[in-house]
Amino acid sequence: MAKKSILKPKKLKGFRDYQPAQAKLRREIINTLTDNALMAGFQQISTPALEYSETLLGSGGQETDKEVYRFTDHGGREVAMRFDLTVPFARFVAENQGTMVMPFKKLQIGDVWRGEKPQKGRYREFCQGDLDIVGVDSLAADVEVISCLASVLDSLIPTSFTVSLGHRVLLSSIIKVALPRLAKEDEVAVLIALDKIAKIGVDKVAELIGALPNVESNEVSELLSVLDARVESGDSDLEVIRKFLDKDEAGLVDLERFESTVEILRELVSESKGKIKVDLSIARGLGYYTGVVFETQIDSLNGFGSVSSGGRYNQLVSRFSSQEVPGVGGSIGVDRLLAALEELQEDTSSKKEGFFVAVAQEEARAYGFKIVSLLRKSGLKADIGLKPGKLANQFKYADKRNYSHVLVIGEDELKTQTVTVKDMETGAQNEGVSINEISNINTSK
Amino acid sequence: MAKKSILKPKKLKGFRDYQPAQAKLRREIINTLTDNALMAGFQQISTPALEYSETLLGSGGQETDKEVYRFTDHGGREVAMRFDLTVPFARFVAENQGTMVMPFKKLQIGDVWRGEKPQKGRYREFCQGDLDIVGVDSLAADVEVISCLASVLDSLIPTSFTVSLGHRVLLSSIIKVALPRLAKEDEVAVLIALDKIAKIGVDKVAELIGALPNVESNEVSELLSVLDARVESGDSDLEVIRKFLDKDEAGLVDLERFESTVEILRELVSESKGKIKVDLSIARGLGYYTGVVFETQIDSLNGFGSVSSGGRYNQLVSRFSSQEVPGVGGSIGVDRLLAALEELQEDTSSKKEGFFVAVAQEEARAYGFKIVSLLRKSGLKADIGLKPGKLANQFKYADKRNYSHVLVIGEDELKTQTVTVKDMETGAQNEGVSINEISNINTSK
Repeated sequence: MAKKSILKPKKLKGFRDYQPAQAKLRREIINTLTDNALMAGFQQISTPALEYSETLLGSGGQETDKEVYRFTDHGGREVAMRFDLTVPFARFVAENQGTMVMPFKKLQIGDVWRGEKPQKGRYREFCQGDLDIVGVDSLAADVEVISCLASVLDSLIPTSFTVSLGHRVLLSSIIKVALPRLAKEDEVAVLIALDKIAKIGVDKVAELIGALPNVESNEVSELLSVLDARVESGDSDLEVIRKFLDKDEAGLVDLERFESTVEILRELVSESKGKIKVDLSIARGLGYYTGVVFETQIDSLNGFGSVSSGGRYNQLVSRFSSQEVPGVGGSIGVDRLLAALEELQEDTSSKKEGFFVAVAQEEARAYGFKIVSLLRKSGLKADIGLKPGKLANQFKYADKRNYSHVLVIGEDELKTQTVTVKDMETGAQNEGVSINEISNINTSK
Repeated sequence: MAKKSILKPKKLKGFRDYQPAQAKLRREIINTLTDNALMAGFQQISTPALEYSETLLGSGGQETDKEVYRFTDHGGREVAMRFDLTVPFARFVAENQGTMVMPFKKLQIGDVWRGEKPQKGRYREFCQGDLDIVGVDSLAADVEVISCLASVLDSLIPTSFTVSLGHRVLLSSIIKVALPRLAKEDEVAVLIALDKIAKIGVDKVAELIGALPNVESNEVSELLSVLDARVESGDSDLEVIRKFLDKDEAGLVDLERFESTVEILRELVSESKGKIKVDLSIARGLGYYTGVVFETQIDSLNGFGSVSSGGRYNQLVSRFSSQEVPGVGGSIGVDRLLAALEELQEDTSSKKEGFFVAVAQEEARAYGFKIVSLLRKSGLKADIGLKPGKLANQFKYADKRNYSHVLVIGEDELKTQTVTVKDMETGAQNEGVSINEISNINTSK
């Protein structure tokens, strides 16, 4: 073979490999979400990584569009890699509307790609896990999505966490009553400003809103004081809001549904590590929300951001269909949660578990494979030395891989159809153990 | 909102959505592979969908290069979507060589993309599941990979299947002895021709090989007759090959290891639905194999192609590292297997299972959520009506979704903290059932 030049092995900036420990944690997150969702009657679907550019672009705002990986494919088509699972799902619903049993409860897990500036803990490829219910606009559907995500988080997060609930339309009603002469198209500027309260403080936010046309500074003060009114627990004071909305009937209807949602959710999470917080100042940037919105923080990880969020969107499918399909959905940021769990979980990397068959003589090789095969079939983790040679090296490998028991086999053991068991924790050794006896050894302590 | 134009919802050619039934089967394949691999001491990793173009291109042959999705990213980098998991794994090994515990037993599952002509059952996006062992060149490692894949297939495939084993280097030795004056660079043409025996027949293959320089037609006849020599079971006649290799010592060593591999594998699959077939004419196109090769057919699906294949490659990492890392690996074509299982499996889409809580009055809503929450926590599948309204509509939905039992709750049930249970199969109805009693109902018959 001609001498080849050697390539430097390297990954793209903002991309990463998952090493075994990370892959394991990621699998745990995905499996927990999947198991919980299926148990609750959600059905899994998946959509392609690539879509027509026009399907994806223009749906998540200009900022998102800039970050989308897009190119012209072999057939001259303009294509793009998905930047979230929601927009492809809208396309899916529009395409399958006729045959879906509504309400359709959907689970969808997959990688998405955004060419954004890489930061600590932020990658250009990351995994999302979404639950959505389309085809019904009801309090029950809102509760179902949020409570299911909360029980997934309760299974995974070892510490307490908080699901903060707001309501996009209720917030609009409050803004409308507070700023009666505000132009409809300026509302989004108010929402964006409100989203910054935690970051830049109430005074700066008041300035931003006050600078908009047809807005009086006393109106802004009132808006902010209503949104800032809190009961003792720190929740938004819904009585203040009720009085403020006074004769805004639509707003009062929304408020009532919101209160029931909060009440039922509170009861459902009461025995978990999660708690519900009411915070009507939550705006959540994305334009498509039309009802309840939520985000989730892990209490001990201040400033870590939300690990799960979502809300109701009743115009999701309108890009693709003249028929409106109401929906509510929420997403677990699998990689965000992975990073959080890495911070919170105790290090289990040195936990010993499983059997390792060390083969002293190659004559016993087939016997060794028979043993691991039997153990695996009984649901026990079992590995075997793959490098013929010194027992000492095989023991070293078994130790590095954290196996709790080494089963030594050689000519003698082959003859007597037994194994010599060494406990890697205590060093205790037992000869002449029959294969049936092995499965009684507890390898995970 | 301004009137928007409506986009026709459509997917790219060669791409598909997974509907719930397909997603379920795919999940089963992936979970079975994962569980088996972890149980056998394999460790999961994953690598990005995108890599530098130079990392991927030129490794799978010109045909493959043409099919790769590639483009220039936001930062002006030449990037490409992976077309298999093996090449990114080679990059991974080269990058992590210093810290990996060798032999490294690897599980890797992920989607890959090829812009090839879409055909029935062939997509431009498909999922592969790979097991590889790097850092050791041993019969044991070959056996481990092939037997683990075979037990995954045994768990998944309801009918019998055949793992055909060949040996790339042994085949080269046979070719060398048969065609002593063949130029080294023409060997690949012989391999490609041999790969076509099943497709175009032995005579045409003889013609192709006979047309190569420095090849006599009687030599070709001998080559083909040696490869075609079979024992009664239909396996390649290894005695004929042993005699033919005569003084080719390297070939005889390979033959001996190959025979032991076959023997151990045969014993390991003896109690499964799989059987081992010896077929030394298997060439398998890819240039990188350097030892045993294998492919797997489902017996009843003639012409369906291989659902799992692989082999030993000892130069895998040489593109990225001056240090040689021997390896052996095999892949399950998840989507190929999915298509096969769809053909073989009985239709279970109408199987009734799980509870559905129908809410007669909204006052009982919170009570309903409490019931589903309890059932789910006990590991039972439980759904709840999300559209307030007529019970009849909720029953219709429960029926369409194939729930086996509907639990009706209204004011009365709320008061007495009971439910009314309706068996959707028999129509039998029971009032006043306590929540604790529900979990004793078997919903999956």
